[in-house]
Amino acid sequence: MANDKKLVEQITSMDEDFVQWYTDIVKKADLIDYSSVKGCMIIRPYGYAIWENIQSILDKRFKELGHENVYMPMFIPETLLNKEKDHVEGFAPEVAWVTHGGSEPLGERLCVRPTSETLFCEHYANLIRSWRDLPKLYNQWCSVVRWEKNTRPFLRTREFLWQEGHTMHATAEEAEAETLQMLEVYANFYEQCLAIPVVRGRKTEKEKFAGALATYTVEAMMHDGKALQGATSHNFGDGFAHAFDIKYLDKDNQLKYCHQTSWGITTRTIGALIMAHGDNNGLVLPPAVAPIQVIVVPVQQHKEGVLDKANEVTNKINSFVRAKIDDSDNTPGWKFAQYEMKGVPLRLELGPKDIANNQCVLVRRDNRQKYFVSLDELETEIPKILAELNEALYNAALERRSAMTYTVENLDEMIEVAKEKPGFIRAMWCGELECELKLKEVAEVSSRCMPFGEEGFGDKCVCCGKPAKHLVYWGKAY
Amino acid sequence: MANDKKLVEQITSMDEDFVQWYTDIVKKADLIDYSSVKGCMIIRPYGYAIWENIQSILDKRFKELGHENVYMPMFIPETLLNKEKDHVEGFAPEVAWVTHGGSEPLGERLCVRPTSETLFCEHYANLIRSWRDLPKLYNQWCSVVRWEKNTRPFLRTREFLWQEGHTMHATAEEAEAETLQMLEVYANFYEQCLAIPVVRGRKTEKEKFAGALATYTVEAMMHDGKALQGATSHNFGDGFAHAFDIKYLDKDNQLKYCHQTSWGITTRTIGALIMAHGDNNGLVLPPAVAPIQVIVVPVQQHKEGVLDKANEVTNKINSFVRAKIDDSDNTPGWKFAQYEMKGVPLRLELGPKDIANNQCVLVRRDNRQKYFVSLDELETEIPKILAELNEALYNAALERRSAMTYTVENLDEMIEVAKEKPGFIRAMWCGELECELKLKEVAEVSSRCMPFGEEGFGDKCVCCGKPAKHLVYWGKAY
Repeated sequence: MANDKKLVEQITSMDEDFVQWYTDIVKKADLIDYSSVKGCMIIRPYGYAIWENIQSILDKRFKELGHENVYMPMFIPETLLNKEKDHVEGFAPEVAWVTHGGSEPLGERLCVRPTSETLFCEHYANLIRSWRDLPKLYNQWCSVVRWEKNTRPFLRTREFLWQEGHTMHATAEEAEAETLQMLEVYANFYEQCLAIPVVRGRKTEKEKFAGALATYTVEAMMHDGKALQGATSHNFGDGFAHAFDIKYLDKDNQLKYCHQTSWGITTRTIGALIMAHGDNNGLVLPPAVAPIQVIVVPVQQHKEGVLDKANEVTNKINSFVRAKIDDSDNTPGWKFAQYEMKGVPLRLELGPKDIANNQCVLVRRDNRQKYFVSLDELETEIPKILAELNEALYNAALERRSAMTYTVENLDEMIEVAKEKPGFIRAMWCGELECELKLKEVAEVSSRCMPFGEEGFGDKCVCCGKPAKHLVYWGKAY
Repeated sequence: MANDKKLVEQITSMDEDFVQWYTDIVKKADLIDYSSVKGCMIIRPYGYAIWENIQSILDKRFKELGHENVYMPMFIPETLLNKEKDHVEGFAPEVAWVTHGGSEPLGERLCVRPTSETLFCEHYANLIRSWRDLPKLYNQWCSVVRWEKNTRPFLRTREFLWQEGHTMHATAEEAEAETLQMLEVYANFYEQCLAIPVVRGRKTEKEKFAGALATYTVEAMMHDGKALQGATSHNFGDGFAHAFDIKYLDKDNQLKYCHQTSWGITTRTIGALIMAHGDNNGLVLPPAVAPIQVIVVPVQQHKEGVLDKANEVTNKINSFVRAKIDDSDNTPGWKFAQYEMKGVPLRLELGPKDIANNQCVLVRRDNRQKYFVSLDELETEIPKILAELNEALYNAALERRSAMTYTVENLDEMIEVAKEKPGFIRAMWCGELECELKLKEVAEVSSRCMPFGEEGFGDKCVCCGKPAKHLVYWGKAY
């Protein structure tokens, strides 16, 4: 087990240095590599395969709900970006500008899209004439660019991958329903497929998307108690429709402005996976998005019949799970450590004795629990154990979140908890920007969201003591 | 049928004006839209769905052959682009330059990737140490940018979508085998899935990819006799490996340079589909990539039971084909014209009389052949008819290509054929750049490729009369 130890020793313990632990995992689990392109990352095959699984699940769900994929140009002319005032103020400071094509300066600078509301609006203005053209439910998978100063793999990079849904509706009600529907798609995806519980809620005015009427969010808690915004869904009302003149002739023969939404999820989701489930042995992946769900490790593979049987078992289970065999000449101990690092949910060990008994050993990644299973029962047992693991991951994350969520009633408490106890802080708020800014300054927390379906517990703002309007989750965030 | 006529009249006849016919189809079949981003296009849902089908077929094939997907940054620092001399000379004149991030000028300009050899090489130099690390078989799906002056939807746009495979091998032989294997993947894809016959061959020195040792290509003939380069596969030898210092320790304990390939196919493939199969009623799509394979059109749909039955049939056939029903209140005639425009391979008509007879009418898009088929036999009949249609498309394209391919033996003949007869011209060539340039000047043709597996037919260069080295396909090209 010398190799095993060596591999594990290379990761910093998360209790010692959480930031370094994270950085170690993204490198050692072969998720990313750095390049000479500052602030950007190379997503390696194992990391990209996780993203492909995320895409595949969500793309199917979007299409079931009637959305269609399109592809917009990656460039936005400066005048187009400038069309909606709040939007350009939000994004202009962090866009990359193309100024030359070949050796010639461009007549007008183009920014590399930081998000594509303006392009979709221009297109929709072209397409939409009548109520018969509505709703329009478009989505695109692409990369976007925001010129961040401080970057970290997956969590904040100058270029990142995402999907952006952009929809147009006849009425305000329909737009609001779409916004909330898509938030729920993300919430379900986080909870069911990623095994990460989320708080659903609305962002404050300060934290909402540039140009939106309302932004909704799903907020997840990481191992270190910090919040991670998991995905957002925005209701734009008819603000952009006015700026871009997007009108339709309604059944009553009146010209009306369209109502608009957008919603997105990004590769930072992979960062959330790492920090919600990972441990000191590496990544822990929920089965739905794991590139390899079962790794088959032959034991004493030089002995006659072992490799043949291991290959046979791998092929057999590949009909119902994503399985792979590692028949390299590394030791089983090295392989165990390697696939623990990569977060493979289940390990299947098979040696001469197992074969003689027509069984194998299954080992769960999360708690190393062992199961001795007949080779004839893998088709029922593997999915069962994977489902148990998924539930255990979710429950562990939920318990941690419960244990690390604090309710405070006054400013002193808030400051103390924020200083001493990592986690979410529930507190009432008057709704004023001034208090939000003050809490940022004195307690170093930002508002994460005003949660859905939770009752308030007091009538005073935690900051100013004036009448409270909203219950808010506060926290430090990625 | 008034609406029907109106719709059809909106397309220019291909015999009258081929360029306008093409432009009409990309718009009327809802493939693309224009925007204020000059030289770029919006790929609309129907166009993008074709691309998704192309992606899905090829991605599966690439993975079966052991390739893994990754994602590289979209930016390339100028110094990195400059590392391989031939490569930068080929691409620098046509790249878009990012010079500012937010309001600050960048320390070094970044180009938006026109292709990613340099990024892959930098990454591979980082990854590859030993013969055990080889081969590396990576691919990425992304968009790239080349600052073209004259653009046309799908055929030549400043931004386009593609995949780029980049592989590293231990030996020259393995790299050459990979290059040819991937060319054959493209050739099969064109011939089997797109029903477009291609000429496989090698590019001349003049036409090869910037920095490559050899470029292979599949060349397709369009309706108007022009050539379209369908996909290319490049063998780089160890040129980039020297420039980027990519070495591995071989089994014999010697440090050796890696051998490299790259290969790609782009959204221009959709342009090829349009121009290889389209007709004066619109697009004609081969089943493998058609977003809708069967459109169900209810006839007299207001009559009791018609819509119910039509929906039932649609759901039933959806288990084995991509089927859609159009139950809008447009007339059947309008619908017929609409889905002919969109190139849907098969139309299923179902009215009260059909229902009484437990049958439906199937109409092929390519030749409007009608089939009266029992509703109980759709599962066998539809795939059969789709396969026949696919074969008919292929054969028609092949016959056209045969009829429009000319063999010439001297310069006068070459000039006359090039002037009078659109198509491919087969002629022997001495291998000198001078003759290639002269043929471009006097006959206005470029070399398409030196074909595989075709014997030469003379010993004199068509241009200079000196000893010939290669048989070459010449033509005007997109």
